[in-house]
Amino acid sequence: MTVRVAVAGASGYAGGEVLRLLAGHPEVTVGALTGHANAGQRLGGLQPHLTPYAERVLEETTPGTLRGHDVVFLALPHGQSAAVAEELGEGVLVVDCGADFRLADPADWERFYGTPHAGTWPYGLPELPGAREALQGSRRIAVPGCYPTAVSLALAPAYAAGLAEPEAVIVAASGASGAGRALKPHLLGSEVMGSMSPYGVGGTHRHTPEMVQNLSAAAGERVSVSFTPTLAPMARGILATCTARAVAGAAPDTLRAAYEKAYADEPFVTLLPEGQWPATAAVLGSNTAQLQVAYDQEAGRLLAISAIDNLTKGTAGGAVQSMNIALGLPEGLGLTTIGVAP
Amino acid sequence: MTVRVAVAGASGYAGGEVLRLLAGHPEVTVGALTGHANAGQRLGGLQPHLTPYAERVLEETTPGTLRGHDVVFLALPHGQSAAVAEELGEGVLVVDCGADFRLADPADWERFYGTPHAGTWPYGLPELPGAREALQGSRRIAVPGCYPTAVSLALAPAYAAGLAEPEAVIVAASGASGAGRALKPHLLGSEVMGSMSPYGVGGTHRHTPEMVQNLSAAAGERVSVSFTPTLAPMARGILATCTARAVAGAAPDTLRAAYEKAYADEPFVTLLPEGQWPATAAVLGSNTAQLQVAYDQEAGRLLAISAIDNLTKGTAGGAVQSMNIALGLPEGLGLTTIGVAP
Amino acid sequence: MTVRVAVAGASGYAGGEVLRLLAGHPEVTVGALTGHANAGQRLGGLQPHLTPYAERVLEETTPGTLRGHDVVFLALPHGQSAAVAEELGEGVLVVDCGADFRLADPADWERFYGTPHAGTWPYGLPELPGAREALQGSRRIAVPGCYPTAVSLALAPAYAAGLAEPEAVIVAASGASGAGRALKPHLLGSEVMGSMSPYGVGGTHRHTPEMVQNLSAAAGERVSVSFTPTLAPMARGILATCTARAVAGAAPDTLRAAYEKAYADEPFVTLLPEGQWPATAAVLGSNTAQLQVAYDQEAGRLLAISAIDNLTKGTAGGAVQSMNIALGLPEGLGLTTIGVAP
Amino acid sequence: MTVRVAVAGASGYAGGEVLRLLAGHPEVTVGALTGHANAGQRLGGLQPHLTPYAERVLEETTPGTLRGHDVVFLALPHGQSAAVAEELGEGVLVVDCGADFRLADPADWERFYGTPHAGTWPYGLPELPGAREALQGSRRIAVPGCYPTAVSLALAPAYAAGLAEPEAVIVAASGASGAGRALKPHLLGSEVMGSMSPYGVGGTHRHTPEMVQNLSAAAGERVSVSFTPTLAPMARGILATCTARAVAGAAPDTLRAAYEKAYADEPFVTLLPEGQWPATAAVLGSNTAQLQVAYDQEAGRLLAISAIDNLTKGTAGGAVQSMNIALGLPEGLGLTTIGVAP
Repeated sequence: MTVRVAVAGASGYAGGEVLRLLAGHPEVTVGALTGHANAGQRLGGLQPHLTPYAERVLEETTPGTLRGHDVVFLALPHGQSAAVAEELGEGVLVVDCGADFRLADPADWERFYGTPHAGTWPYGLPELPGAREALQGSRRIAVPGCYPTAVSLALAPAYAAGLAEPEAVIVAASGASGAGRALKPHLLGSEVMGSMSPYGVGGTHRHTPEMVQNLSAAAGERVSVSFTPTLAPMARGILATCTARAVAGAAPDTLRAAYEKAYADEPFVTLLPEGQWPATAAVLGSNTAQLQVAYDQEAGRLLAISAIDNLTKGTAGGAVQSMNIALGLPEGLGLTTIGVAP
Repeated sequence: MTVRVAVAGASGYAGGEVLRLLAGHPEVTVGALTGHANAGQRLGGLQPHLTPYAERVLEETTPGTLRGHDVVFLALPHGQSAAVAEELGEGVLVVDCGADFRLADPADWERFYGTPHAGTWPYGLPELPGAREALQGSRRIAVPGCYPTAVSLALAPAYAAGLAEPEAVIVAASGASGAGRALKPHLLGSEVMGSMSPYGVGGTHRHTPEMVQNLSAAAGERVSVSFTPTLAPMARGILATCTARAVAGAAPDTLRAAYEKAYADEPFVTLLPEGQWPATAAVLGSNTAQLQVAYDQEAGRLLAISAIDNLTKGTAGGAVQSMNIALGLPEGLGLTTIGVAP
Repeated sequence: MTVRVAVAGASGYAGGEVLRLLAGHPEVTVGALTGHANAGQRLGGLQPHLTPYAERVLEETTPGTLRGHDVVFLALPHGQSAAVAEELGEGVLVVDCGADFRLADPADWERFYGTPHAGTWPYGLPELPGAREALQGSRRIAVPGCYPTAVSLALAPAYAAGLAEPEAVIVAASGASGAGRALKPHLLGSEVMGSMSPYGVGGTHRHTPEMVQNLSAAAGERVSVSFTPTLAPMARGILATCTARAVAGAAPDTLRAAYEKAYADEPFVTLLPEGQWPATAAVLGSNTAQLQVAYDQEAGRLLAISAIDNLTKGTAGGAVQSMNIALGLPEGLGLTTIGVAP
Repeated sequence: MTVRVAVAGASGYAGGEVLRLLAGHPEVTVGALTGHANAGQRLGGLQPHLTPYAERVLEETTPGTLRGHDVVFLALPHGQSAAVAEELGEGVLVVDCGADFRLADPADWERFYGTPHAGTWPYGLPELPGAREALQGSRRIAVPGCYPTAVSLALAPAYAAGLAEPEAVIVAASGASGAGRALKPHLLGSEVMGSMSPYGVGGTHRHTPEMVQNLSAAAGERVSVSFTPTLAPMARGILATCTARAVAGAAPDTLRAAYEKAYADEPFVTLLPEGQWPATAAVLGSNTAQLQVAYDQEAGRLLAISAIDNLTKGTAGGAVQSMNIALGLPEGLGLTTIGVAP
């Protein structure tokens, strides 16, 4: 089986990471690579790490350039995916790395994005209950946000097992690539290096309703989320520190058992041995989520911490994993569980 | 007035920062500089940034070398300060950058440090209610821990104003200098750069009881603290993200007013204008704590975020500020509110 | 004596650093702060580390706003200084942090900048032979480029002593702030962190003729310069590795003696003890240049390595030092030789 | 064909990188993993990024544990390889990542390492003239040093084409992993971040004679090397800036043609298009060396700059590539030309 794949938005960080992974996928042939502002340019000047594709020239993102592929990855600004997908037809697998089809509740979408809701597609986080099944055979995939990936993997088992009260408090640190390639002063190297700073605070970050959605589904009741993202002086990686008040009975053993059970058969989630904690460097470039849990008796809270690479498991890796499921390929094709460290 | 000052432990990060600040203090003469493993070495080889003291040779940390000064800063491993202080006599101002005299409750000390409690000294965080008064004229000062400094400044006003429920959830990121100069594999540059990782989780970090102590004092009732420290890929800085469930009435205006009132006259705490958030780079090398607060209506929680330089306001700057108070000098002598950025 | 000082271009990195230093200068009152694109904005939103000036609003850079000061620092894009200076009159001390008046040879200027030469002002690197005298009483100062500062301090003594052949080979690493606050993709944090890369190679960097000028003056003959700048993953700092073939007689002792003699009385140049090498972290925020020399017998070359903070000694610190000289103030006022480390 | 491979020294950075690459090698089965100080420990605690091997326990490095494999990688301290190799017998392919067998001249070895010379093995830099042929069928491989790899790839074509005078001047920046996992104060994250500093200057670095050896072989005459290594604030990567005086006729076109010819068929060396310069981030985790050349007419020098990942192409990648050649496998098996960026 050879799958012909196009990447729309190949000059950005998400699109570049999709291409990096596809390059090592044994069943994939890379077709059109498209861009907008950078159309007409050599990819080698934009993504100098993608050596085999250096002489490829970016085409314009149009239905014409994207048609004729079995799979089309969309790494476009929010709001553009629906129109493109419609043009491609129902038989093409469209994998949307943007936010457009992640949220089930139109009101959530409209409140956080300010435009009409485009719809809801099967959600590309196979480790959530029911998600893998919904992806099988699907021709539409909504790739989760990077923060919701880290947070949902960290907290869903506790909520599914009824161990946590429905008020999650989450602080996450992300590398600067999470903000994409946009030219903004606070993203300059001079400003980022040596600095930690929060942004999107007080419930305003657009990934918040997606976390609420996932955790509420796991809990079977609405879970409120206090989410604070912070920008860390590194290129890649998310460390999500997630806590919730523990219900009676959420002792260390119970807690750990819930996570062991949830992830026993998941190749891309590693519950670390007790005493070892996740580190983003350990998952750089890999599709692994490292996880650890603890129970703080004094504070009466449980703690779940996850580390992922925001561009791999948090975006392109999750996207390729979901593509594999949708196409009936082995789930791990083209992906690795090994990080590039130190 | 010229104050003759000795620094014990001048080869470490805390001692070096004390010396950096003393060098710019107009009323101070730097006397003995002592060390243990490094005694006999040129300071220039150990602290190459302290240009004026490069040819000073570290003396052994003994009562003999430390005697004859008006002020002695102790930057020693935990547990060693009591014996040294006793030898120096009551007339000498002893400023302890270690933990030995921070905690009021012997049981807290023993649970977290495992040794007998040495006592309690006036606490060197002048911005806390009553702290400045206790420092005036004192000849003993317990310099706060770096995390408790960041966290107490962030949350004390909310607790003092009765706006927060007594369960604080805190996630803080610290630069690697916070771990001191100890040679441990996880502190190697190769491991730290590009990585965020937690440590001391689940209520086990030794700064936890100090936060509980300070926040409880502000609240007038016991405040529980869920504290997760993380190691960030930077040399200096702490970003503390602190949240608590809001009580009824803790709307944005009320919250902000409480902080404006608490810090209106504090030269070293800056409540940023609404919409601007703290960044550790902005306070590098300065004695400033940057602060911002928010009210997350959806989650029902208030949020207070602070940024400090862990070695300056978090250790040596707070120590010098407290020394100034104790000696009756202008509080800001030798200190700056300006960071070195970008 | 109180000197009233304006800073034109106060929203950039150079202007911000000038202001940081002026804030601690005991004889200076800070007057107008101006900008162009950012005029009308609070300085606190642009330079959050300059706490005492946070509520200052940037004025437009016009003769009107700059007039009425004793000293005007210009931190403007190249080519704009001449017109501004002319408007200010001859009695005002104009300190130009730009390149416009650095080069003596109009042909050099035109070849590298492509516009007519504006003239030549006294050169703000007091440690060069004759430079300090030229600055005394001057009302115009051309602040050197950051790389030429590091390189000239490193190599001038060897050339002045006749120890080096007139072909210098220089490779320098600079922190990202050296590129200013311009929004360019390769300066994004995601791209800078974890990466070393060259730019302006093959003799094309605009600082090259300035190095040729300074080293030739020291040597008394034309010195050719092969200069390769590289961008390093740090915010500040320049490490300049400078080599030249040694002439007969340039043995280790002779070499070292030449540097000891050249810098014996220079407060802002530190020739490190043998065996200790410069590090940019050691001079962060300070006006110190750290220096070390070696003689490589096998290769027949001498080596001089310097570390400076590109924004301090390399720009704003050198500018303030030169201002002090021009005004007859103690040369070190407002400056420190101590870095902020670690 | 399945090759059974052991890694001695699997807890260090070089050994870990060998294992990372072997994990993705389709013809390899990973056998014994050994260590010394860490023998008996879970690999997961030492190399948390190597997920599939987390539960492997390090065995002691002895002949007994290493015997019974087709290939043994040695990532041991210098001086230990000869004894181990002898015990393994001539039929086993021994790939030595240490320095013991790199140098042909015993006098060079003794001068730089101070012990008797162990011998010389086929040199694992296949891109050098004759090297690939020497590796075919060999059962002993000396993996080059990381700096010599970067420098030899950068300069050998110019010397082989007779375009450069035999005095090379090289300044290289390396990430901190190049220093290995040794616990030394200057390698602490606090010291490394934000700092560039030189070390091993003046011809003293042990990689110098290896560069002399390789460049002299290419030139057909003795080439002297002035080599200055610097430590850069990043975990991985080497940027080598290499220059030499150009001979008459070394114009840009001639120079470029020599490199195009040298590397036309080399999968792991990329001569970038004119105007594009290497960046270490672009080759992170890949076996690619990025290269660019320039001719500086004014200075009369040619310039060749290379970027590699010190642990991949600079150590473990070159080692696996050489193993493939020795075993008659396709040269690129288990290796990628794609970096992990940004």
